[in-house]
Amino acid sequence: MQTINVVLFDNFETLDACGPIEILGSLNNEYRIEYFSLNGGFVTSRQGLQTQTQSFAHVESNGILLIPGGMGTRPLVNDDEFLTQLEILANKSKDVLTVCTGSALLAKTGLLNAKSATSNKLAFDWVTSLNPAVNWVLKARWVVDGNIYTSSGVSAGMDMALGYVNDKLGITVARKTAHDIEYVWNEDPDNDPFAKGDGRRAKEAAVNTAL
Amino acid sequence: MQTINVVLFDNFETLDACGPIEILGSLNNEYRIEYFSLNGGFVTSRQGLQTQTQSFAHVESNGILLIPGGMGTRPLVNDDEFLTQLEILANKSKDVLTVCTGSALLAKTGLLNAKSATSNKLAFDWVTSLNPAVNWVLKARWVVDGNIYTSSGVSAGMDMALGYVNDKLGITVARKTAHDIEYVWNEDPDNDPFAKGDGRRAKEAAVNTAL
Repeated sequence: MQTINVVLFDNFETLDACGPIEILGSLNNEYRIEYFSLNGGFVTSRQGLQTQTQSFAHVESNGILLIPGGMGTRPLVNDDEFLTQLEILANKSKDVLTVCTGSALLAKTGLLNAKSATSNKLAFDWVTSLNPAVNWVLKARWVVDGNIYTSSGVSAGMDMALGYVNDKLGITVARKTAHDIEYVWNEDPDNDPFAKGDGRRAKEAAVNTAL
Repeated sequence: MQTINVVLFDNFETLDACGPIEILGSLNNEYRIEYFSLNGGFVTSRQGLQTQTQSFAHVESNGILLIPGGMGTRPLVNDDEFLTQLEILANKSKDVLTVCTGSALLAKTGLLNAKSATSNKLAFDWVTSLNPAVNWVLKARWVVDGNIYTSSGVSAGMDMALGYVNDKLGITVARKTAHDIEYVWNEDPDNDPFAKGDGRRAKEAAVNTAL
């Protein structure tokens, strides 16, 4: 049994966290989900979901860290205490998964330097401006570099979580997990219909520039 | 501003609730989300998400009721107090939306009698056995009958929520909402790749029996 340690903060985007939680938490013979915030206690998502959390001090080593994004990342990229503690959590985790602008937080710790990563396409300019030492990939549903998984915006976290399941438990388990929640899984991490703002333009960009 | 009143209970399926919450809650000039359970207090999802709720007594009239499904529905279909209170909530709501086996709960109140509705395809036999007076639709991503929306399993709730947005606010708003969360919306309520267990068989069934 492995532990998924979910990092929450006020104004996190509900589905960024709850999509991967649904997928990984459904595999309850494999993964147990725990919920954390810097100081513990209640955290409220952008959609008003009030969730109970433990403090970062209770995160155990060797777990799988899940970092969602959302408007709550905007102040946190300038919060040195939060970033220092997040770096400690990431360093003691076996794997790190970010969704949407969660990669902005990880980028600010420096742990993405010289690594490939992606993020929300609507916030791409903002995220990439925070740390140009990252190899930001514009056209990707999700990116894997070593033990770090980063996904594109919001619902892309579900595709990435299923990709993580595929990498760790195999394609049969991943496809069954998607099927059980009646989800049409985008299995190809390079198939990103939202790069460049919409599917049509992304397709043209791919044709024209072989992105 | 309208209120989405989310009905939670222990062992609700996280994405059943959080998918529609993400979509409707993102339209925060239109919808405010409130969270309820029969007696209020903490409710824990199947994936361990601990959420704070108010009691059913605090639900205001004329809101939009959202009823998720999950393993927690299994004891509740035999819980007369819960069903009585749920019926009161549904009767005082403007619209009622169910996801997955949430339709089992609504079916047990009798409010789906002689109406068309759908549910999770993996649990379809169980759900339909609870109330044969409902016109259960096997092949549907979601079904609308009057002011009642019922969706197929788990992630179908997101497609239904976008369908609801389309019906109330128009296709442009619905498509923009899907795009903003980088979600490939299945816009067609009759396009159900999971009826009959898998897409191929569903397609054959549709061809062979004109379901």
